[in-house]
Amino acid sequence: MSRFLDERYKELEPYTPGEQPKNLKRLIKLNTNENPYPPAPGVLKIISREEAEGLRLYSDPEAAELAEAIGDFYGIDKSMIMTGNGSDEILAFIFMIFQGKNRRFYFPEISYSFYPVYCDVFGAEAVKVPLASDFSVNPRDYERADGTIVITNPNAPTGMAMSLKDIERILKSNRENLVVIDEAYVDFGAESCVKLLKGYDNLLVVQTFSKSRSLAGARIGFALGHEEVIADLNRIKFSFNPYNLNRLSIKAGVEAMRDREYFEQMTGRIIRTREKFVSEMEKMGFILLPSKANFVFARHESIPGEEYFTKLRKYNIIVRYFGKPRIRDFVRITIGTDNEMEELLTATQEILKEYRQEDPQYEKKENT
Amino acid sequence: MSRFLDERYKELEPYTPGEQPKNLKRLIKLNTNENPYPPAPGVLKIISREEAEGLRLYSDPEAAELAEAIGDFYGIDKSMIMTGNGSDEILAFIFMIFQGKNRRFYFPEISYSFYPVYCDVFGAEAVKVPLASDFSVNPRDYERADGTIVITNPNAPTGMAMSLKDIERILKSNRENLVVIDEAYVDFGAESCVKLLKGYDNLLVVQTFSKSRSLAGARIGFALGHEEVIADLNRIKFSFNPYNLNRLSIKAGVEAMRDREYFEQMTGRIIRTREKFVSEMEKMGFILLPSKANFVFARHESIPGEEYFTKLRKYNIIVRYFGKPRIRDFVRITIGTDNEMEELLTATQEILKEYRQEDPQYEKKENT
Repeated sequence: MSRFLDERYKELEPYTPGEQPKNLKRLIKLNTNENPYPPAPGVLKIISREEAEGLRLYSDPEAAELAEAIGDFYGIDKSMIMTGNGSDEILAFIFMIFQGKNRRFYFPEISYSFYPVYCDVFGAEAVKVPLASDFSVNPRDYERADGTIVITNPNAPTGMAMSLKDIERILKSNRENLVVIDEAYVDFGAESCVKLLKGYDNLLVVQTFSKSRSLAGARIGFALGHEEVIADLNRIKFSFNPYNLNRLSIKAGVEAMRDREYFEQMTGRIIRTREKFVSEMEKMGFILLPSKANFVFARHESIPGEEYFTKLRKYNIIVRYFGKPRIRDFVRITIGTDNEMEELLTATQEILKEYRQEDPQYEKKENT
Repeated sequence: MSRFLDERYKELEPYTPGEQPKNLKRLIKLNTNENPYPPAPGVLKIISREEAEGLRLYSDPEAAELAEAIGDFYGIDKSMIMTGNGSDEILAFIFMIFQGKNRRFYFPEISYSFYPVYCDVFGAEAVKVPLASDFSVNPRDYERADGTIVITNPNAPTGMAMSLKDIERILKSNRENLVVIDEAYVDFGAESCVKLLKGYDNLLVVQTFSKSRSLAGARIGFALGHEEVIADLNRIKFSFNPYNLNRLSIKAGVEAMRDREYFEQMTGRIIRTREKFVSEMEKMGFILLPSKANFVFARHESIPGEEYFTKLRKYNIIVRYFGKPRIRDFVRITIGTDNEMEELLTATQEILKEYRQEDPQYEKKENT
């Protein structure tokens, strides 16, 4: 820490992203919820020498072409869309400028672990609302709040989705509070609340190209909301980093958004792989929370989460382990290709067999 | 403005970037200091279908490969380098976390017009130090300051450079203040103060790939400084937007940084074009501040800056006009290719001829 750093940042605990190993050969990477399939064919085509030459020029600070493509997809006007350098940048702006009178944010205790970091960065209070005993988000806990509400739907790392009815309940009782629904994983079986935008000007939806559109490395996020809320976000963007999206990402995003068919095929494929994987895991004694995301949150009856995580690593499979209260037994597993999931299942069988041999208590545990 | 926006941002006046017209055909774009030449050959080669497929994966949040390439170029360790989504993002972080005890920034009154916006965003005081009568930055004005100092060298939009001796003077008398030297334009004839890093841990140098490395559209900036200062910047980056650089920009940046020969050729070419252009403009009655940048700041004896700017537009040539106190007579002209500058000179001759005919006072003015 340098002597120049302002006091208020000295205690800051930065967010820890999932590991991004440099050498992916012989590694099955199921730790950061990336899409196992390549971006849409149009994306692969547009990333070309010609576009590389164009890099000498600045990008369009409004990324108008991209906002239009998103607007076309959802059937809304581009004045209701703001684009960012990944949804993380948009979330940062939200925690910066929409703190509410009491400078307070309500979000589930178990959720995207970046939210409390943003609160620390921007000097807001984090109100961490416990999940229900089944790990679901209880809408009643957010009724008549006195601050901004941020809910990931489906939630991470649980993968569990809320119904639109429940979200509407929160929106209705919080007309004077902004309600942010982070839909990073919504395209894998949950329902988007974009359709609620018409009735609720206190709703702000955040989405990303990182998961369902296979563009994690292009860094594109977007927010959908009432025109005035979007104008506020753009005001801070133009006061912080106007050219926040690079030229190639804008092009890639446009192509990815326009290809609805490819998008539906790939998300459908991941959903099918997930359902198959879930039932195989259950057969082996795993308990999985009901996932509507491109990952599952799983724990085993007997083998501790951290041990399972560590042993998978020996099979060159990386998943994510959080080791936090209430979720110490769980690992989060991204849904990859069918082949990748089969390799994980095979490795898991081996691990369980080993574990049974090592641990004389195993049979007993299994039968209790 | 929405009812959710925090009070403190309601008065914010965002930065206005230079115009980025969508249709560049038949347009000579000399308004945002872009490089007229394409990025290095290695960049054009690496932007490929294969890399586009890789976009499904997150980028390396540390952008280690890029930091290493920059370190190799300058002969410094990568622990002294931080990379950002354009130097604007890095500057935003600087204004956020290095405000000093008095939350105060000193910078030249005429300089990058984003600095006062950053002060507003982060609630710091902007101390705008007037330039000398010849538009130079006087180092004495920054001795023993009581806040963070930010100086663009060469300055923009004047293009005028400071000597290392003058910068060292500021560094010496401000051991307890961070001194930020924004070297966005340093590669066009000024001297970088990277070599002063050894002696001064209060120095932070900011550079960009947007100008001398023809990558404005890739959004890559970097900061060079003492290990602890860089760690502070990374701490805030990891608390705001860890994956701030996209995969393709990291790749492009590495290639651009490694090709020193191409870099020297292209910057050399722009310097030669500038010198030739300056002497032609002087012949036509223009006064140009001594530029060490890839632009010139010019005014004419008779024709007002705004009028010249507007008339050039009719010839499909866009330059930048600021219309602010002390610089109302000036236009800023980016140095393009030799051909582009010749077209501008020809158009200027026409404009001056027209102006002479329209304005009966012209001859008189010219002779006073």
